[in-house]
Amino acid sequence: MRTVSLTTDFGNQDGYVGTMKGVMAGIAPDIAMVDITHDIPPQSVSATAYVLWTALPYFPEDAVHLVVVDPGVGTSRHAIASKTAWGVLVGPDNGVFSYVWEQAPPELTVALENPAYQRPVVSGTFHGRDIFAPAAAHIAAGVPLREFGPEVSLPVRLPTPGMAVGDGVIRGQVLYIDRFGNVITSIGRLVWEGALLHLDPVFTDGEPLTLNARRVCVVVGGHELGPILKTYGQTSVGDRLALVGSEGMLEVAVNHGDAGTTLSLKPGDPVEILLS
Amino acid sequence: MRTVSLTTDFGNQDGYVGTMKGVMAGIAPDIAMVDITHDIPPQSVSATAYVLWTALPYFPEDAVHLVVVDPGVGTSRHAIASKTAWGVLVGPDNGVFSYVWEQAPPELTVALENPAYQRPVVSGTFHGRDIFAPAAAHIAAGVPLREFGPEVSLPVRLPTPGMAVGDGVIRGQVLYIDRFGNVITSIGRLVWEGALLHLDPVFTDGEPLTLNARRVCVVVGGHELGPILKTYGQTSVGDRLALVGSEGMLEVAVNHGDAGTTLSLKPGDPVEILLS
Amino acid sequence: MRTVSLTTDFGNQDGYVGTMKGVMAGIAPDIAMVDITHDIPPQSVSATAYVLWTALPYFPEDAVHLVVVDPGVGTSRHAIASKTAWGVLVGPDNGVFSYVWEQAPPELTVALENPAYQRPVVSGTFHGRDIFAPAAAHIAAGVPLREFGPEVSLPVRLPTPGMAVGDGVIRGQVLYIDRFGNVITSIGRLVWEGALLHLDPVFTDGEPLTLNARRVCVVVGGHELGPILKTYGQTSVGDRLALVGSEGMLEVAVNHGDAGTTLSLKPGDPVEILLS
Repeated sequence: MRTVSLTTDFGNQDGYVGTMKGVMAGIAPDIAMVDITHDIPPQSVSATAYVLWTALPYFPEDAVHLVVVDPGVGTSRHAIASKTAWGVLVGPDNGVFSYVWEQAPPELTVALENPAYQRPVVSGTFHGRDIFAPAAAHIAAGVPLREFGPEVSLPVRLPTPGMAVGDGVIRGQVLYIDRFGNVITSIGRLVWEGALLHLDPVFTDGEPLTLNARRVCVVVGGHELGPILKTYGQTSVGDRLALVGSEGMLEVAVNHGDAGTTLSLKPGDPVEILLS
Repeated sequence: MRTVSLTTDFGNQDGYVGTMKGVMAGIAPDIAMVDITHDIPPQSVSATAYVLWTALPYFPEDAVHLVVVDPGVGTSRHAIASKTAWGVLVGPDNGVFSYVWEQAPPELTVALENPAYQRPVVSGTFHGRDIFAPAAAHIAAGVPLREFGPEVSLPVRLPTPGMAVGDGVIRGQVLYIDRFGNVITSIGRLVWEGALLHLDPVFTDGEPLTLNARRVCVVVGGHELGPILKTYGQTSVGDRLALVGSEGMLEVAVNHGDAGTTLSLKPGDPVEILLS
Repeated sequence: MRTVSLTTDFGNQDGYVGTMKGVMAGIAPDIAMVDITHDIPPQSVSATAYVLWTALPYFPEDAVHLVVVDPGVGTSRHAIASKTAWGVLVGPDNGVFSYVWEQAPPELTVALENPAYQRPVVSGTFHGRDIFAPAAAHIAAGVPLREFGPEVSLPVRLPTPGMAVGDGVIRGQVLYIDRFGNVITSIGRLVWEGALLHLDPVFTDGEPLTLNARRVCVVVGGHELGPILKTYGQTSVGDRLALVGSEGMLEVAVNHGDAGTTLSLKPGDPVEILLS
């Protein structure tokens, strides 16, 4: 079975997601449909871009990823499908695939314009049902990408979240806050793995992280969090901590608690690592 | 794989939905189970009827639709299965299938009484697990409907939501408010397509809708919303608008906002289209 | 298709659950993945133990049950897989399987230590993706349990929720409150079926339950609820009632309402059945 993942901001309360799955089941009955999430904050393109970047590398390479976070539905924005090393991406051309494309660049991107692969009547407000779901199912069933429409050479891309390395300080920002209240920042894998810091990704148990033998202190929202730890287990319940999260990004957390609320943080807030 | 959809008011927090899927997997391991929603407002038969009406026409015709919104569980209400052009419907006989039946009339409806197709012990409070899920799985596996019990000739039906056409005015009501706060009304497809209004369903881009060449103004909750537009794209962020939604019904929305909250609307509130 | 169920406290808002499913689809493309719930209260081992106990007996015997409620991730707690009559359980060794094991004892439990069945890099914070999901998929694909690591002879178990039978009184506690506000207590099946009470599980319609011909009165949170009924249908909308729930446990409910909120109850609160 070929996998088709779904990512939307539709929530689970209405019938919208089920409707799209019904459409796909009618076109390609033998696919495995997997929900990534339907609780993207309504119309948040940047949260979508982040979530896809964390999830897609773990799917089979032949997967199709259907994404409907589409504040521009009914405007002139393109509907696209984009072949990458992380699978075929299907969704609106509004930047939702930006972070994925940084690591899995688009090999071929087409506009979904061929009415043969759309619902007979296309509504003005629900392209997920009428354009995107049919396209994802037909792609999973083997229809070549060039059948869907002309190539799009410059799809929309979001700017990369900022991270700046200064003298004795690394500056970034809050990127995403998950349901546990863990605060994920834009300071990440590229720093750890880059020539600048020569960080060994394997930590010694129980030892705080150092960067090039310098002591580090994480500062966010006016709070000094101290060094970067390996796991929650190095702290007590209720402690604030900085650690390297499961995606290789600097995270701020509260052991058994909600760091986003406790520290009053939101996406875009500045975060710093001070080296001394 | 044959598709079995699920629609309940169980929410996703407890193990009830998973339990029903476990029961079905044991009876028919090769079905594709698709969630429509489990977040129907608790015990709301009318919201269920609306959601099923929007989602079911998009599923394969041989699908089985399992519905458990069942405030009368443990009373004398029947458990039923009903064959229609939109698939086989399985659920309580309390009106949840009313709106589906208006477009896909029941061809054969039976009472689920044969204990051979129920769990060995039937509880007083969880017929979803003990009666409905086993029936849906056995139907998907090919058991004929007449095996389950005697025919039910007059299943329970809700009244059709009101819509009245007067001199210069079309009156209806709020039918449903979705998770985005879009307000769906009972003024819909039947009007647009009926002899009365001769409305061309294909709008001209950028032009407000007219009805038989008369100007229209939508009024709801004391708010004058003006003409009926084609898409959100014809307005600016924060604007209120009336449009024809993805189901062909008159909808009231706020561009990038929540019309239900902004305009203080709830199901049953009156809505009018004034013609001048 | 072999079924793999998933139970976590990850919620559905982030991409964590989808990521685990992507990992499994890559290893075992032909499994049927079934969500039990992802809305376990964050890090609540006892709620997990209860939900698994209610759901797992209804799954096929060859199912694999993936459970990630893991407050000790990154500490020295084991990751385990445990073969039982209710399927193979995969998750952290922190007690989540306690209540299942009371009825389906562990036949073989192993520690998941073999790196051949883990992701190439194991993070400190997301063992669901890096250890548990790969193990569940490999087990569903047929890898024998002993391949994963050494036997664990004494996995962690929670104490059984209290229930005490005194002179004219049965004492227990609130175990779980579901999304409807139904209050499930620890007074249950073992009492009903035990030699003590000789209770016939088949109630006479409309007749309140008696225990050994004595009248019963349920008391919880200072409220006298009267006798134990068979179904909601014996009461009117808004009435409080005690009944035997779908799992055979004493439940406290409000007809069409929320008993947990109405009666201000929470897990651990005492509940009593008085016999007279």
